[in-house]
Amino acid sequence: MIKRNRVGILFVISAPSGAGKTSICRAVMEKREGISFSVSATTRPPRQGEVNGKDYLFVSRDEFQQMIDRDELAEWAEVHGNLYGTPLLPLVKKTDAGEDLFLDIDVQGAGKVLSYFPNSVGIFVMPPSIQVIHQRLKGRGTERPDELERRISAAKREIAQFHMFHYLLLNDDFEQAVADMCSIVDAERQKTAYLREVWW
Amino acid sequence: MIKRNRVGILFVISAPSGAGKTSICRAVMEKREGISFSVSATTRPPRQGEVNGKDYLFVSRDEFQQMIDRDELAEWAEVHGNLYGTPLLPLVKKTDAGEDLFLDIDVQGAGKVLSYFPNSVGIFVMPPSIQVIHQRLKGRGTERPDELERRISAAKREIAQFHMFHYLLLNDDFEQAVADMCSIVDAERQKTAYLREVWW
Repeated sequence: MIKRNRVGILFVISAPSGAGKTSICRAVMEKREGISFSVSATTRPPRQGEVNGKDYLFVSRDEFQQMIDRDELAEWAEVHGNLYGTPLLPLVKKTDAGEDLFLDIDVQGAGKVLSYFPNSVGIFVMPPSIQVIHQRLKGRGTERPDELERRISAAKREIAQFHMFHYLLLNDDFEQAVADMCSIVDAERQKTAYLREVWW
Repeated sequence: MIKRNRVGILFVISAPSGAGKTSICRAVMEKREGISFSVSATTRPPRQGEVNGKDYLFVSRDEFQQMIDRDELAEWAEVHGNLYGTPLLPLVKKTDAGEDLFLDIDVQGAGKVLSYFPNSVGIFVMPPSIQVIHQRLKGRGTERPDELERRISAAKREIAQFHMFHYLLLNDDFEQAVADMCSIVDAERQKTAYLREVWW
């Protein structure tokens, strides 16, 4: 019987704010084994319910600067006034151990990670319309009006860059979007590019 | 609401004899719209139940030679003493019209088509073991012993080339293999590489 040994796959998931990418990833992880969120570092304060080391690695500006100086980040960027970065070592260790990862990241950072890891898989989650982004952001109730306006403008700029990603996943119907993301994960897991060894 | 216009995808499906690739493709076409078999030309005589123009374009050696001379074939090869070829124009016309195609082809031809169409998607269907190929070929009851031996040897050579394909699809359990092929089709249909236009 055939046996396969493969490296883990890094799925780089990006979207304009309010496209619903994080909820889709969570639902996929409930349906599929062997895939988890990569944990980013950030200087932004935790939101209610967020857990340090699980949702984010919450660090001070000084600590973040040290990570930059030690080349410990695959990428980092300032978004909406806060620093966000992707610690390199956990990505390499986990994918080397055959574990697949979702990296939930802004478009700016996604471009850097996709270049840094040529075998990573870029997925851009597209909301069905700008009106829907507007509604979803307002529905959260966490944004001030000027912040909301800034996020809508950013969304338009980000959407213009979807061609940088391998996949364009439309999030119109949530269940369909989850099924579509599962198809991408299931398909990518069959790629020969990730195979290290095949015994037969 | 977002609308997408994309080119059709050419899925180049190859496998050692007896791996079950044709049955998998048929089952996928029952579950998914907008995908059909590309029709190859061949000089081999029709088997019972095969329909000209549907299963194959059955042609004489002379007619086949004319197709070669007129550059009408994307590839052609001699396999087990018969000529097989892939007419170019229907592939281009159908994918240009946004229709997806399964090209059911031997490994030798698959390599040529994958080079000819850089956006085509190579899928190698792998039987779970050599023993299974042996059993499946004998089960068909259509092969003479020397023919059977020749096909087993060819299968081993073909398997050694699986890295030429994008996907390695294991056909151990038939229903799982059909689901896996559906995932590949569903995922590929979300690729940005095939998009011609996006309205938003």
